[in-house]
Amino acid sequence: MSDLYRYFAPEHKTLAFELYAPVSGLPLICPHGHVDPRLLADPDYQFGSPVDLLIIPDHYIFRMLYSQGIRLEALGIPRADGGAVATDHRKVWQLVCDHWHLFRGTPTGVWLRDELRDVFGVEVKINGANAQTIYDAVSAKLEQSEFRPRALFQRFKIEVLATTDAATDSLQYHQAIRDSGWTGRVIPTFRPDAVVNIGTPGWRKTIDALTEMSGVTVTDYKSYITALEKRRWFFKSMGATATDHAAVSAYTEILSDGAAHALFERALKGTADERDAMRFTGHMLCEMARMSLEDGLVMQLHVGSRRDHNPALYEGFGANMGADIPTATEWTYALKPLLDRFGNDPRLTVVLFTLDETTYSRELAPLAGHYPILRLGPPWWFFDSFNGMRRYFDNVIETAGIYNTAGFNDDTRAYPSIPARHDLWRRHAADWLAGMVSRGFIDMDDARDMMTALAYGLAKQTYKL
Amino acid sequence: MSDLYRYFAPEHKTLAFELYAPVSGLPLICPHGHVDPRLLADPDYQFGSPVDLLIIPDHYIFRMLYSQGIRLEALGIPRADGGAVATDHRKVWQLVCDHWHLFRGTPTGVWLRDELRDVFGVEVKINGANAQTIYDAVSAKLEQSEFRPRALFQRFKIEVLATTDAATDSLQYHQAIRDSGWTGRVIPTFRPDAVVNIGTPGWRKTIDALTEMSGVTVTDYKSYITALEKRRWFFKSMGATATDHAAVSAYTEILSDGAAHALFERALKGTADERDAMRFTGHMLCEMARMSLEDGLVMQLHVGSRRDHNPALYEGFGANMGADIPTATEWTYALKPLLDRFGNDPRLTVVLFTLDETTYSRELAPLAGHYPILRLGPPWWFFDSFNGMRRYFDNVIETAGIYNTAGFNDDTRAYPSIPARHDLWRRHAADWLAGMVSRGFIDMDDARDMMTALAYGLAKQTYKL
Amino acid sequence: MSDLYRYFAPEHKTLAFELYAPVSGLPLICPHGHVDPRLLADPDYQFGSPVDLLIIPDHYIFRMLYSQGIRLEALGIPRADGGAVATDHRKVWQLVCDHWHLFRGTPTGVWLRDELRDVFGVEVKINGANAQTIYDAVSAKLEQSEFRPRALFQRFKIEVLATTDAATDSLQYHQAIRDSGWTGRVIPTFRPDAVVNIGTPGWRKTIDALTEMSGVTVTDYKSYITALEKRRWFFKSMGATATDHAAVSAYTEILSDGAAHALFERALKGTADERDAMRFTGHMLCEMARMSLEDGLVMQLHVGSRRDHNPALYEGFGANMGADIPTATEWTYALKPLLDRFGNDPRLTVVLFTLDETTYSRELAPLAGHYPILRLGPPWWFFDSFNGMRRYFDNVIETAGIYNTAGFNDDTRAYPSIPARHDLWRRHAADWLAGMVSRGFIDMDDARDMMTALAYGLAKQTYKL
Repeated sequence: MSDLYRYFAPEHKTLAFELYAPVSGLPLICPHGHVDPRLLADPDYQFGSPVDLLIIPDHYIFRMLYSQGIRLEALGIPRADGGAVATDHRKVWQLVCDHWHLFRGTPTGVWLRDELRDVFGVEVKINGANAQTIYDAVSAKLEQSEFRPRALFQRFKIEVLATTDAATDSLQYHQAIRDSGWTGRVIPTFRPDAVVNIGTPGWRKTIDALTEMSGVTVTDYKSYITALEKRRWFFKSMGATATDHAAVSAYTEILSDGAAHALFERALKGTADERDAMRFTGHMLCEMARMSLEDGLVMQLHVGSRRDHNPALYEGFGANMGADIPTATEWTYALKPLLDRFGNDPRLTVVLFTLDETTYSRELAPLAGHYPILRLGPPWWFFDSFNGMRRYFDNVIETAGIYNTAGFNDDTRAYPSIPARHDLWRRHAADWLAGMVSRGFIDMDDARDMMTALAYGLAKQTYKL
Repeated sequence: MSDLYRYFAPEHKTLAFELYAPVSGLPLICPHGHVDPRLLADPDYQFGSPVDLLIIPDHYIFRMLYSQGIRLEALGIPRADGGAVATDHRKVWQLVCDHWHLFRGTPTGVWLRDELRDVFGVEVKINGANAQTIYDAVSAKLEQSEFRPRALFQRFKIEVLATTDAATDSLQYHQAIRDSGWTGRVIPTFRPDAVVNIGTPGWRKTIDALTEMSGVTVTDYKSYITALEKRRWFFKSMGATATDHAAVSAYTEILSDGAAHALFERALKGTADERDAMRFTGHMLCEMARMSLEDGLVMQLHVGSRRDHNPALYEGFGANMGADIPTATEWTYALKPLLDRFGNDPRLTVVLFTLDETTYSRELAPLAGHYPILRLGPPWWFFDSFNGMRRYFDNVIETAGIYNTAGFNDDTRAYPSIPARHDLWRRHAADWLAGMVSRGFIDMDDARDMMTALAYGLAKQTYKL
Repeated sequence: MSDLYRYFAPEHKTLAFELYAPVSGLPLICPHGHVDPRLLADPDYQFGSPVDLLIIPDHYIFRMLYSQGIRLEALGIPRADGGAVATDHRKVWQLVCDHWHLFRGTPTGVWLRDELRDVFGVEVKINGANAQTIYDAVSAKLEQSEFRPRALFQRFKIEVLATTDAATDSLQYHQAIRDSGWTGRVIPTFRPDAVVNIGTPGWRKTIDALTEMSGVTVTDYKSYITALEKRRWFFKSMGATATDHAAVSAYTEILSDGAAHALFERALKGTADERDAMRFTGHMLCEMARMSLEDGLVMQLHVGSRRDHNPALYEGFGANMGADIPTATEWTYALKPLLDRFGNDPRLTVVLFTLDETTYSRELAPLAGHYPILRLGPPWWFFDSFNGMRRYFDNVIETAGIYNTAGFNDDTRAYPSIPARHDLWRRHAADWLAGMVSRGFIDMDDARDMMTALAYGLAKQTYKL
C-alpha cells in the first residue's frame, strides 16, 4: 500500500521505508509537553465530545479558523467573562469541517487526518459532507473504555510522558497517579516562569504561593532562592528530570548577590521596571543552571515568543489563543554570561529551543557544536512540521551533528495526536537519512544507528530518562 | 515535447503537468504592477525599438550588466542631465546580447527567453551571434498591429490589470481608456507615498498638487486627511480596489489628533526631522487602514527596500536604476499598533510584502495565520523567481495555509513579460503541489482546488476583483 | 561504480556526472587559505604522526569532540601554559576513532573519509575497531617521499596556493620557496588585522613590528599609512594578488585626515575606546580599498565571527580552538560609506564572505548584482558543506548570477584535505547545474560553461591569478 511510504520522497521511498520500519514501533519518549496530568490521574477520565477533545484545547486549529474571520465564540471557546459561546458541539464540528480546506498542506491537517485514521479508525476525509459521520464515529469511540487516557497511553506505547508544571504546583495529580498503582510513567517538569517574571501583574501572588508550597517564608532574595531549591528537589522526588524556562529573549547576566537582593526588594515593593525584569530573568537563568549542576535536572530554554500579541483576544479569552508571535532572537552574545560560567561543565545539560530559524546555522549549531553543556531541541511549535524539520536538519546537522541534538518531543496538549506527531518525525528522519544514503554521504549502517538515535535514543539520553 | 514539462522536477513531472494544464489557459489577474496606463490609453501605441521595449525600462536587466562594469550610458539609459548616451539601439542590443551569459540561471534570463519565444516567436537562443537576427525579428513584430498593447492585452487574456498611481495623479489615461469604449479592464491603485513622506525634499510640492487635484485646500492636518479621503473615493470611482504603501520599515503608531496636527505643522514649516517623518509615516499607515474600513479599498504594504543606495547613480540617472537594496525587517512589534486597533475586523484586508525572507516563517506566517485582516503577498522583487517561490511556499504555507495568501501578482513594468511571469508562478505552484501529492500530504482533489486558487482565485478574491 | 556518482541526486546523477567529469581533473585554484608556508619551504618537510597531521591542527574536528565532553588535553592539543597533555598519539587516534560517529552527516566526516581513501589509500571505515589499522596505514604513507608537501602539491594539481600572512610577516618562507627553485606557485596574502585592530591588547607591539618590517618609523597616522602601503608593495612583489580583512561587523566609515590622526594618537596612548576601535577598523577598510585601487590587490572581507567566545578555552589553549561563534551581520547600511566612495570603479574588486546566510538573498546578492566592485565569496566556514553550498546557490544565483561570485576557495589549514574540498564543491556545482538543466532553466551548453567557471575560471579571474 502506498500509504506505507507516506511523506517519503518517491525517488528513495523504499530506502526510507527500510530505515523507518524498525523504529516505527519503538516506544514513545515524550520529555516535553503540555498534557494535563488530570487525564491520567483519574482512571475513568472521559474526554467529552469530539469538540472538547479536538478543537477547544487546540489553538493550532482555532487560530487558523479565526484568521479567516470565524469568531472564537462560534467555535465554543470559553470567554474569560463567561459570556455566551456556542454550546452545540455538533454545529461547532460542522463549522470546523466546512472550513477544513484551510488546513490543506499544514501539519495540523496531516496530524488530524492521521490521528482520526490511526486512533479512531476514521478513514473518510474531513469535509463538510462527512462532518456528522465523523462526529458520530469519534463520539462512539470516546464512549469506549479503550479510549480512556490510560488505555491510550498503553496503546500509544508511551514509555514516559513529562508534563509541564508551575513551580508552585502541588503535583497532586502526579501524586494521585503514583498512589493509584498504575504503572504508566508520568513525570512533572519544573517551570518557574511565573515566580521569576517579576514584571507580570500576578507575580506577587506567586511568591505567596511559593512560600506556601515550599514551606520557606519568602521575604527576600535569599529565602526566595532557598524556596526554589526546595521545590526543585520536591519535583525531582516526584520523578522530574528537567526544568523548563520560557523567555522573550535569551538574555543572561550574573548579578552579584547584593544586586540580586536589591532588585528582588524592588520587585517586592512593586517598583521594579522593565529593565529590572529583563535582568532578573537573565540572572535567574544562570541561577537555575547553578541549581541544575547541584540537583542534576536538565534545563530547557524556550526563547522568542511575543505572547498574547492580540490584546482584544487576550482580554476576551485569556492566554494561549493562537496569538503568540515569534520575534528575532540573538543567542551568541545573550548566552555568553551563562556559558562563561557554566558552559564547560559536561555534568550540565541545557536544551535550547528557538522560533527564529535563522539562528539554526548561524548561532545555535556552532554553539552546540562547541559547548559541552548545550543540546538543540527539535524544531519547535510552528516548525514542528515536515518542512520545518527539513530546514532544521538541513541547517543544524552539518555543523552540530545529530548527537548534539535532543531528538524529538511532541510539545502538545492534544493528547491523542501524540503518535501522529512522533510518526511524522520518524518518517521525516527516515526520509532525510535515505537522501543522505542515496547521495553517498553516509552508509546504511550509520543510517540505521542514526535512525534509532533520532527516533528514541537521543531524547531518552538527553533528558536522563 | 519536453518543453511541456519545463520547470517541473523530473520525478513528478507528469503529475505536475496534470495539475498545471487546466489552469494554464486561465485569464490573468494582475492586481499589482507598474505598467504605464498610457500604453493602453492610445489604441495605436507603439513600443519603439526592441531596446526601448526590453532594456531601457527594465532595471532587472541593466543593473546586472552594470554590475559587470558596463556603463548605463552605453545601454542608452537616459541621463538626468540630458548628457550623451548611446542612441544606436542595434549596437546597444548587440552589447546586451554579448553579455547575456550573465543571466544564466536568473529569472530575467528565463522570462526573456519565454517572452521572446511565446510572444515574439523567436526560438533561437540569445547570444552575441544571434543578436541582430533577434533584433530584426522583434522589430518586425513590433511593426504589426497585433503587437499594439491593446491587442496583446486580449492575447494575454488579462482579465484585469491594476496600475500604480500617485495620489495626486489625474488618472487621465484611465479616463481615456474608459472614454475610448475599449473593454479591457485597467484600474488604478492609490499610492500616497509621495504625499505621506514628509521627509523627502519634494514633499511640499506634492501637497500643492494634492490641493489642486482634490479640490480641498490643504492647510493643516485635518484638511490633508479630508483631501486624501476625497482622492481615495475618486480612485475608487475610477475602478480602484486597492491602495499601495511602500516604506523602509513596517513601523506603525497611532498619534493623537493633536500630535498629528502638530507634526504636520512642523512638516509644512520644513522643520520636521527624521524621527517625525518615521512617526508620521507610521501614523498614516494606520489612518489609511481606518479609511480602508470606510471605503473598502484593500491595503498593500511593501516594506524593506533602501531605495537609491548608490548616490552617484541616483544623481546621474534618477530613481529605479537597480540600486535599491533590501534591509532586515521587523514586523511583530512594528505592526502591533495598527493590529491592536484594526487587526480583528474581517472587513479590512491588508496585504504584506517583504524583502526579508527570514520573516516568512518567523513573523509573517504566524501573523497572517492569526489576524483576520492579514494576507501575505507573493514573493516580491528579487524573490519573484523559481527558488524564491519555493522558499516562500516552504516557509509560509505550513503555518498560514494558502488561503491566507494573496495569490500572485507580476509587479512589472515590462508589459510583454506578464504572461511569462504568471506562467512561471503557475508552473511552480503545480510543481510544489505535485510534490505534496506524491509525498501523500494532500490528495489530487485538494491539489486541483489549490491549483486554481493559487493561479487565479486568491488574487481575485483578495483584491475584490 | 556507484562512487562515481557520489553526492549527486539519484534522479539526475548521470547528467551531473556528465557535467562533472570534464572538470574533475582541472588544476586547483586556491586563492584563500591557511596552509603554513613552512610546509612548502622545506623540501623534506614531514607531517609527523597522523594526529599531528589530521587532528591537532583541525579545530573542525576537535571542537566536535569537545562538545561531547572530551577534553582537549586528551586529544593532545598543546596548552598555552605548556601543561600536560596526551602525548601517545596512538591513544589519541583511538579516542578520536571511538567517537567518529559524531561526524556522521558532517562535512568533516566526508572530507576525512575522502581524503583517507583518495590520498592515503585507506578504504576502511573510520571507527574504533579500525583505528589502529588506519593509524598504521597513514603512518606508513607519511614515511614515503611521495607524501612530502611538495610532492602532494604536484599530485593535487594545485595551480596556485595563496597563504594568509600578517602584515608584519617577513615572508621568509615564501622567499625560501622562491630561492629553492621549486616551481610550485605559492603566494602570500596581506592580512593587516593585527595592526588595524587598535582595541586588542597586543596592538602596540604590532606597530613596532610594522616599523621594523617596513623600514618606516611609525610615529603617527601618516607614517602608519605609508608603512602599510610599503608592506603591500612588498607583498605584491612576493606574488600577492590579494589582501584579507576580518571583522566582527561590516561597518565602514571615512574619517577626515584630522579625525583619523587624532584617533590614531589615542590608540598610541592607549586611550582609545571600543567605539574608536570600531570606527578605526571601518575607516581602514576604506583606506585599504583606496590602496587597492593603486596597487591592484583584490580585497577580501570576512565578516561576522565573534572570535574566542569561550574565555576558559582561550586562556587554556589560545585562539582558533573551535570557539568562534557567528553573529547576525548587516551589510546594506554598513558598507554604504565604502561603496559611496569606491563602489562604481570597476578596477577595484572586493570579495565578501559572510557567516550570516540570511544576508545572501536579502543584502549580498542585490549588492553584488549592482555594484561593479563586488563579488561574493563562496560559502564560508560552517557553510563550506553540501547543504551550505545548496543554500548559497539557491539564495544567491538568481539575483547575482554566477559571474558576480568568486568561485571556490578551500580556506583550510588541513593541507591534505584540499582535493576533497574542491571535489565536494565541483560535485555540488555539477549536481546543482544538472537540476537546472533537467528542469529546463538552462541548456547543456550553458551548464558546461558555468561548470568550468565555477570549478576553475571564476576564482582565477576574480583573484587575478
